[in-house]
Amino acid sequence: MRILIANANTTAAITDACATVARQAAAPTTIIIAGTPTFGPAVISTRVENAIASHALLSMLAEHAGRVEAVVLAVSHDTALEAARQLMPCPVLGMTEAGCLTACMVGGRFGILTLGQVAAYEDLVARHGLSARCATVRGVAATPLDALRDPDGVAAMVLAEARTMAERCDAIVLAGAALAGMDRHLQDDCPVPLLDGIACAVKMLEGLVGLGLPKPRAGSYAAPSGRASMGLSPALDAMLRGG
Amino acid sequence: MRILIANANTTAAITDACATVARQAAAPTTIIIAGTPTFGPAVISTRVENAIASHALLSMLAEHAGRVEAVVLAVSHDTALEAARQLMPCPVLGMTEAGCLTACMVGGRFGILTLGQVAAYEDLVARHGLSARCATVRGVAATPLDALRDPDGVAAMVLAEARTMAERCDAIVLAGAALAGMDRHLQDDCPVPLLDGIACAVKMLEGLVGLGLPKPRAGSYAAPSGRASMGLSPALDAMLRGG
Amino acid sequence: MRILIANANTTAAITDACATVARQAAAPTTIIIAGTPTFGPAVISTRVENAIASHALLSMLAEHAGRVEAVVLAVSHDTALEAARQLMPCPVLGMTEAGCLTACMVGGRFGILTLGQVAAYEDLVARHGLSARCATVRGVAATPLDALRDPDGVAAMVLAEARTMAERCDAIVLAGAALAGMDRHLQDDCPVPLLDGIACAVKMLEGLVGLGLPKPRAGSYAAPSGRASMGLSPALDAMLRGG
Amino acid sequence: MRILIANANTTAAITDACATVARQAAAPTTIIIAGTPTFGPAVISTRVENAIASHALLSMLAEHAGRVEAVVLAVSHDTALEAARQLMPCPVLGMTEAGCLTACMVGGRFGILTLGQVAAYEDLVARHGLSARCATVRGVAATPLDALRDPDGVAAMVLAEARTMAERCDAIVLAGAALAGMDRHLQDDCPVPLLDGIACAVKMLEGLVGLGLPKPRAGSYAAPSGRASMGLSPALDAMLRGG
Amino acid sequence: MRILIANANTTAAITDACATVARQAAAPTTIIIAGTPTFGPAVISTRVENAIASHALLSMLAEHAGRVEAVVLAVSHDTALEAARQLMPCPVLGMTEAGCLTACMVGGRFGILTLGQVAAYEDLVARHGLSARCATVRGVAATPLDALRDPDGVAAMVLAEARTMAERCDAIVLAGAALAGMDRHLQDDCPVPLLDGIACAVKMLEGLVGLGLPKPRAGSYAAPSGRASMGLSPALDAMLRGG
Amino acid sequence: MRILIANANTTAAITDACATVARQAAAPTTIIIAGTPTFGPAVISTRVENAIASHALLSMLAEHAGRVEAVVLAVSHDTALEAARQLMPCPVLGMTEAGCLTACMVGGRFGILTLGQVAAYEDLVARHGLSARCATVRGVAATPLDALRDPDGVAAMVLAEARTMAERCDAIVLAGAALAGMDRHLQDDCPVPLLDGIACAVKMLEGLVGLGLPKPRAGSYAAPSGRASMGLSPALDAMLRGG
Repeated sequence: MRILIANANTTAAITDACATVARQAAAPTTIIIAGTPTFGPAVISTRVENAIASHALLSMLAEHAGRVEAVVLAVSHDTALEAARQLMPCPVLGMTEAGCLTACMVGGRFGILTLGQVAAYEDLVARHGLSARCATVRGVAATPLDALRDPDGVAAMVLAEARTMAERCDAIVLAGAALAGMDRHLQDDCPVPLLDGIACAVKMLEGLVGLGLPKPRAGSYAAPSGRASMGLSPALDAMLRGG
Repeated sequence: MRILIANANTTAAITDACATVARQAAAPTTIIIAGTPTFGPAVISTRVENAIASHALLSMLAEHAGRVEAVVLAVSHDTALEAARQLMPCPVLGMTEAGCLTACMVGGRFGILTLGQVAAYEDLVARHGLSARCATVRGVAATPLDALRDPDGVAAMVLAEARTMAERCDAIVLAGAALAGMDRHLQDDCPVPLLDGIACAVKMLEGLVGLGLPKPRAGSYAAPSGRASMGLSPALDAMLRGG
Repeated sequence: MRILIANANTTAAITDACATVARQAAAPTTIIIAGTPTFGPAVISTRVENAIASHALLSMLAEHAGRVEAVVLAVSHDTALEAARQLMPCPVLGMTEAGCLTACMVGGRFGILTLGQVAAYEDLVARHGLSARCATVRGVAATPLDALRDPDGVAAMVLAEARTMAERCDAIVLAGAALAGMDRHLQDDCPVPLLDGIACAVKMLEGLVGLGLPKPRAGSYAAPSGRASMGLSPALDAMLRGG
Repeated sequence: MRILIANANTTAAITDACATVARQAAAPTTIIIAGTPTFGPAVISTRVENAIASHALLSMLAEHAGRVEAVVLAVSHDTALEAARQLMPCPVLGMTEAGCLTACMVGGRFGILTLGQVAAYEDLVARHGLSARCATVRGVAATPLDALRDPDGVAAMVLAEARTMAERCDAIVLAGAALAGMDRHLQDDCPVPLLDGIACAVKMLEGLVGLGLPKPRAGSYAAPSGRASMGLSPALDAMLRGG
Repeated sequence: MRILIANANTTAAITDACATVARQAAAPTTIIIAGTPTFGPAVISTRVENAIASHALLSMLAEHAGRVEAVVLAVSHDTALEAARQLMPCPVLGMTEAGCLTACMVGGRFGILTLGQVAAYEDLVARHGLSARCATVRGVAATPLDALRDPDGVAAMVLAEARTMAERCDAIVLAGAALAGMDRHLQDDCPVPLLDGIACAVKMLEGLVGLGLPKPRAGSYAAPSGRASMGLSPALDAMLRGG
Repeated sequence: MRILIANANTTAAITDACATVARQAAAPTTIIIAGTPTFGPAVISTRVENAIASHALLSMLAEHAGRVEAVVLAVSHDTALEAARQLMPCPVLGMTEAGCLTACMVGGRFGILTLGQVAAYEDLVARHGLSARCATVRGVAATPLDALRDPDGVAAMVLAEARTMAERCDAIVLAGAALAGMDRHLQDDCPVPLLDGIACAVKMLEGLVGLGLPKPRAGSYAAPSGRASMGLSPALDAMLRGG
């Protein structure tokens, strides 16, 4: 089974880091393929960048359609998730979506823990209709740059916050590329499961592919067909035209 | 005051039709400017097209930034509304958003009436946090093409549905370009107000500009700054870099 | 265009203060008319007073029906808003309602900032169906009397609270007569827009009047007709009888 | 124990009918006292009338304060419930509120069944925060006048609707004076309990009085004190001044 | 009238304590009968114990069916409430349910105050569909054992928390056997009503019995009939078979 | 990997049927073990039976604790799910829960389709906090006995309903043992995915086990310890005592 780890920004190093986490989680027979957009923001941290990256991501996905059995959106904002799910002939999961749904399977209420601002993740949980299951979204007062410069210091801050969250949360989703891999590092000292979205998405997709569900032929997730456009990549234009 | 009527698809005829409605609603001192993206879908009717059009719309808006005092998103899906609001230094309203908020001002519960599928508008009302005010979303079983071929027949269908909705709705928002101008045509025979989103947006924006509110300098609607990207239009790239 | 600034308490000085704010916000061609009830509470700060003032407000409105093109309820509890909207043949907005809906147009989540207790405003936001858009309601620990005695001190407290709220709110509605005009005073030091409900209501009403929407002829906002009563003012009694 | 049956309209015949139902439900040691406002609408069926009646009701209640141990608001809109609860030194229940809370005690989801329009009751359930427990609000297509002219015919319509509602509702609250007493008449033919709001309120108040709970001394239900007003009845004015 | 105080754990001392509170609340003509399960957990403080106790409770209830006029579930988790309500031919109230519904009758928003963890009570309020009325659930950092060893110390902690909660809550439900009777002890020093669930349930049930509502004959609360089982107590088996 | 298919009723034929579906879905290396309670209801179709079966199920699970790596609750009411999750040292999924969460991964809104009454499933979706994702719950007017007698006729009814639901649902969960296996039979004729809860649970559990998440050591899903009880099975008693 080939699973595409689809980054939505143009920074290949982040794609690689996500692919590494994915390979650690994947079954032996799963092949992890990494994809990076060829245009758009270097990193997504604003609403504008997220909107632009939607197009970049879909263009990249169109190149892989039919050549992979599943897609992980390796971007913690689950950028263009619904559109990607419609576009692709195979299952697609967002990494934060996968973390949240996995959290639903292991307990009652989950929390999301990130670096910095929390509003985008609160919006994301609401967009996924999971607000009733989310006890809190917390942001540690540190930047991704801080995490590079002082990984131990930031890890200590994350752990302290996670332990406080554990009083109200049965599982904690770590959100944002800067926290990738931290679940393994901190799990022993945290009394509730720490979830990495990429790992969750890989395992859930292996299960979804195994179910062999058909692509919807009706509704807003059926593949587009007969749609005209201009200025798009040939692959994306072809998928809109369908056939 | 210059208000940009920003279409999100590439069909200039639709832009022109929206601009005409806007001019009819605008104050004498308001100048309506029309904008059409240079790439993207010809018409937006799928999730994929909507996601692609977000980029196309923002690229076009970047060309107008600083040259208009307000922006109407002339696309009934309120495509990229939140990103456009962050990007632009001036007020931005989506046409359906404006219709819904205006409806809140004239009664208790509103309805949305469109041609065809309703799911996208139900999602949109939820995204705007207005579900508690929306009594129903109804779709008349006709296509935009039907509306062109048999305008009177479709108008009769719309009126019949609107009159039924009036039993539960204090105002009705007409959604979709195919219903543009129909509010005036049918209002006399409908017992509750029929709202055209473009007209509502123009009037609310004239008021918003009059309030002279500042652009947020904090939070997720503050202008992007210092953001790197590749492959974007010079104007959009410059706005991401800020300064 | 004549807009009635309708106070719901009997203190003419508060009416005048509200009318002054309204005139500063109004277009040159808008005429601001002030109305004060002839009976009822001097100030509304309890549930009992608010219920009594509903009658007093409607009695006063009945005197103006047909003589103004729009009404602002110049009372931060939006007293009798739904009834006033039904009674009057013209658009009616509550000042806090207008502040909240305007806040929806400028960002994602808004906050409400007042002096003292917050429960009434939390109830009001829920009554307007806008809880999903309201991040928080905060009350500064000061009374209106404090604001008169030490305006600079209270303004400093309001600003400090507003700056804290700006971490979660894209716009802040200042609620309560004691904060009237404070938006202009404090805006430069606050990173998100501060909204004055009276000013917002005036601008939105100028837009609403411009839309020329009809009065509903069906539903619970259609004008009363054929309703018998006793002991009411002649004008109010006449409007209940209709005709 | 004296329980005041407080009508909110000026029609004494309706007060009497409600008092009769109350007496049938009351314990032998409970004394039912009936109160009718001296001004306001003859019948409450619009938003305007409901707002006016709030004042009339509170004026009447003030005459009884300290002379009764409990109050039933004998008006299906629960007019001015929160204000009456604050004003009076004793427990106050609205008849529809009491019906809904009693329904919560006998099953999972309840329905409300009335004559005519349902929007006001949907709003009322939301105001009481009980929407999650209310499966449906249904209105039989008949007027109170129809119920007088053809009681058997209307009763048959009510029964048919109730039986349909019983497929989704574990209990049904009959709302509106025109349905008073119908619960007894129809219960044998309906598979789920039919609730009369007046009867429910009387029994719940007998229990509440027995609990001997104190009047709140803090928050928005503490008695008003030191509040100035003009033009109100001496009794109401005195209660606002407190002391 | 005979009311069964049905404990769900096997500790008779707790049953007795609850029965004592019930007798203090009951009308002179009400007879309080106490019931204790013959198997199951000694005390319920985990999800597993609560699920096991459901069976134990229903087995005990079956012994009393037809011999009591009402049942109080004397367990703050309202264990097996819905099933007990279906099983028994008479009204059944949970003690926390009764406290919450009584709180709804005396104010706008209530709080729940307990010892230790709050998650179970937040879930319980949601299960009862009353989240919109519940301002907060708070847990004092003390165990039931602490309350036995240092009753004055724990009472002081409870009072301090209750006074803080009174800033947001119009009534406070005391949850958990360890707080039984504390409402009387602390009420004078707390500005809003403190509610004991057992007492509330007794008074509401006296009222419910007085209403004489029939047992539902349809829906999920109608008595079971024709249901086969194995290994259950003869009384419970008989009730499942019905007839 | 050993997965326990845990029926909650005492009918071994139903356990076997569920185990067969599970084996069809399982990976080659997964071993399906079937468990049937030794006491309790023969079939669960009432609230009382569901509550009793919770105990029976937990007793049976206790026999398997430590001997399986995952548990599927093979009962469409997800009986005792939260308690089972706390009790067991391994992941536990309910079959309807698994169907709903899988549905969230393949589209926006799902529907649930069953035979007969729908109220229990509406309650279940609310208990899982997934109401925002569930478009509708529909019940075909047929009994499990009908499905045995006339499988083709019932299948035709299910298909017709599913096709109607597909207008609003992006995926459909088939609920109830009587519909087991019908997803494969009908999928070709239905335009959106049909989900079997057992199959979904098996695949999601294979993924969850692969993630290797730890058992929570805090909160309400941590294993019980030091809890006393009487009359329980030795295995269940031992798990409550812990250690």
